[in-house]
Amino acid sequence: MGALGDLEELAYRLALIQNASQPELKKPHMLVFAGDHGIAAEGVSAYPSEITYQMVLNFVRGGAAINVFARQHQMELKVIDAGVRHDFEPSLPIVHAKIAQGTRNFSLEKAMTSHELSQALEKGSEIVEEISRTSCNVLGFGEMGIGNTSSASMLMSCLMELPLEDCVGRGTGLNDEKLAQKIRVLQEARNKYPARLEVADIMQTFGGLEIAMMAGAMLKAAERGMILLIDGFICTSALLWASKLYPEILEYCIFCHQSQEAGHGRMLDHLQAHALLRMNLRLGEGTGAALAYPLLVSAVKFLEEMASFDDLE
Amino acid sequence: MGALGDLEELAYRLALIQNASQPELKKPHMLVFAGDHGIAAEGVSAYPSEITYQMVLNFVRGGAAINVFARQHQMELKVIDAGVRHDFEPSLPIVHAKIAQGTRNFSLEKAMTSHELSQALEKGSEIVEEISRTSCNVLGFGEMGIGNTSSASMLMSCLMELPLEDCVGRGTGLNDEKLAQKIRVLQEARNKYPARLEVADIMQTFGGLEIAMMAGAMLKAAERGMILLIDGFICTSALLWASKLYPEILEYCIFCHQSQEAGHGRMLDHLQAHALLRMNLRLGEGTGAALAYPLLVSAVKFLEEMASFDDLE
Repeated sequence: MGALGDLEELAYRLALIQNASQPELKKPHMLVFAGDHGIAAEGVSAYPSEITYQMVLNFVRGGAAINVFARQHQMELKVIDAGVRHDFEPSLPIVHAKIAQGTRNFSLEKAMTSHELSQALEKGSEIVEEISRTSCNVLGFGEMGIGNTSSASMLMSCLMELPLEDCVGRGTGLNDEKLAQKIRVLQEARNKYPARLEVADIMQTFGGLEIAMMAGAMLKAAERGMILLIDGFICTSALLWASKLYPEILEYCIFCHQSQEAGHGRMLDHLQAHALLRMNLRLGEGTGAALAYPLLVSAVKFLEEMASFDDLE
Repeated sequence: MGALGDLEELAYRLALIQNASQPELKKPHMLVFAGDHGIAAEGVSAYPSEITYQMVLNFVRGGAAINVFARQHQMELKVIDAGVRHDFEPSLPIVHAKIAQGTRNFSLEKAMTSHELSQALEKGSEIVEEISRTSCNVLGFGEMGIGNTSSASMLMSCLMELPLEDCVGRGTGLNDEKLAQKIRVLQEARNKYPARLEVADIMQTFGGLEIAMMAGAMLKAAERGMILLIDGFICTSALLWASKLYPEILEYCIFCHQSQEAGHGRMLDHLQAHALLRMNLRLGEGTGAALAYPLLVSAVKFLEEMASFDDLE
């Protein structure tokens, strides 16, 4: 024992989550939450907000990386419009859960109203409630939203009480100058609000609709005893927030990919988590969670076959 | 581009190996080479030599970890008796390629004769030649052999001209005292031979029959333009040796797992290689290569679907 290292720990964790010596993976789903961010107007991202809805359309057409990996591993992909700044055709096969046309610009005002926050959390919870009726017991979490590394950095800085510069990274490709600008914009925004904020206020002030909805979904998934596959920096920020409300949520999580985004490693350390993969992915979409999924299958099969081997002896 | 990090590099490497914009993975095989080591008599391993043949029988019964993962990924598993100290029934479904009943104890005499070395290399080459006729184009390499981390450390020390203590690790579970003894035994053995040895002499003196046969197999696989999946420390030592004869072999290799065995990281650096996984596996058997295999499938599917997506535009 111990010779299979992280794979054995993974098997053990899955067994604990299901409170079963022989855990099973049933109807895995990948939920990709999409939303826009008012803060994107301040030039904190290398891409314009329009990319968010264009990527949602790409997910629907099946042409994105997450489509490829979800198909490969027979994970059912659900794309959720939590707050994209675009009106999608109602017939589009996505989960229509739009709370608003993106968040407000938090350098000027709170990102959402308290009502919007409640709605987003509630909707996330409902989505998982419905999926859990299909006997699905494993959920991957992914996201798409231009500007959402800024939100995630703000959440991290507030929740972990760290200076912003320890929490801000290059997102999907900022150069040095743009990175400095991002830190400056976020620091100025941070200074507009009280130094200490309640957990709910932190999400309301700096969060994203897709991040809040994901947090609501994660909380419900843990309540239902599901396995949560945590992807990269943004997903981990949603989880970090959720864990302040319900610390036991962490026991249901498999951390799939440690990204190079500055701060992600530190956030994982804070959660005493160790990710299965470190492959320099910086796409989001849940790609890290999908790529790690076969390792869960390996862990389960390993337990299964060890058990049947014991029976033979 | 670049957003999929190591997966994109992997896709690029596969395309280069096959000199095709759309590489394909055909009939993947996992070759597990088994052999015993005379040096095991000196107490350098936590387990007795008998474990080697018992594990071979376990592979045949399908009860080992590599059986589980190879089945999961539809890799055909071939177990090769390169030099196990046990007479297997000829009817046993393994590749009967025994060169000798284990190597000689290299603290007393060279591990093999030059004839045995040639035979082992030749046989490895033949095995791959035969497999390549099935249109297989991807080969995983694994091994089983009590004492073989000692051989691998000696090869590393000689080929990279490093002190032994930088190359010796705990194998499958030595404590501090046993580790110190292992280093002492190996250093004394090393001192019995000339400081400078030819590449072929290094394998003849300190190698293992399974390591030499694996090196012969790797050389043929590269010659046939196959994709080589390199597992852990032992497999990498075989490759390191082979690369001194034919440096271009490295272009055909995918490094699958970086183990915690002291020296493996250093060996990979020397080969300018970066492994896909780091999961603290220390079982060998090719488990790291098998666990990484779905990432190759992801890389290939990613290229495929990107191509068909381009066609649509």
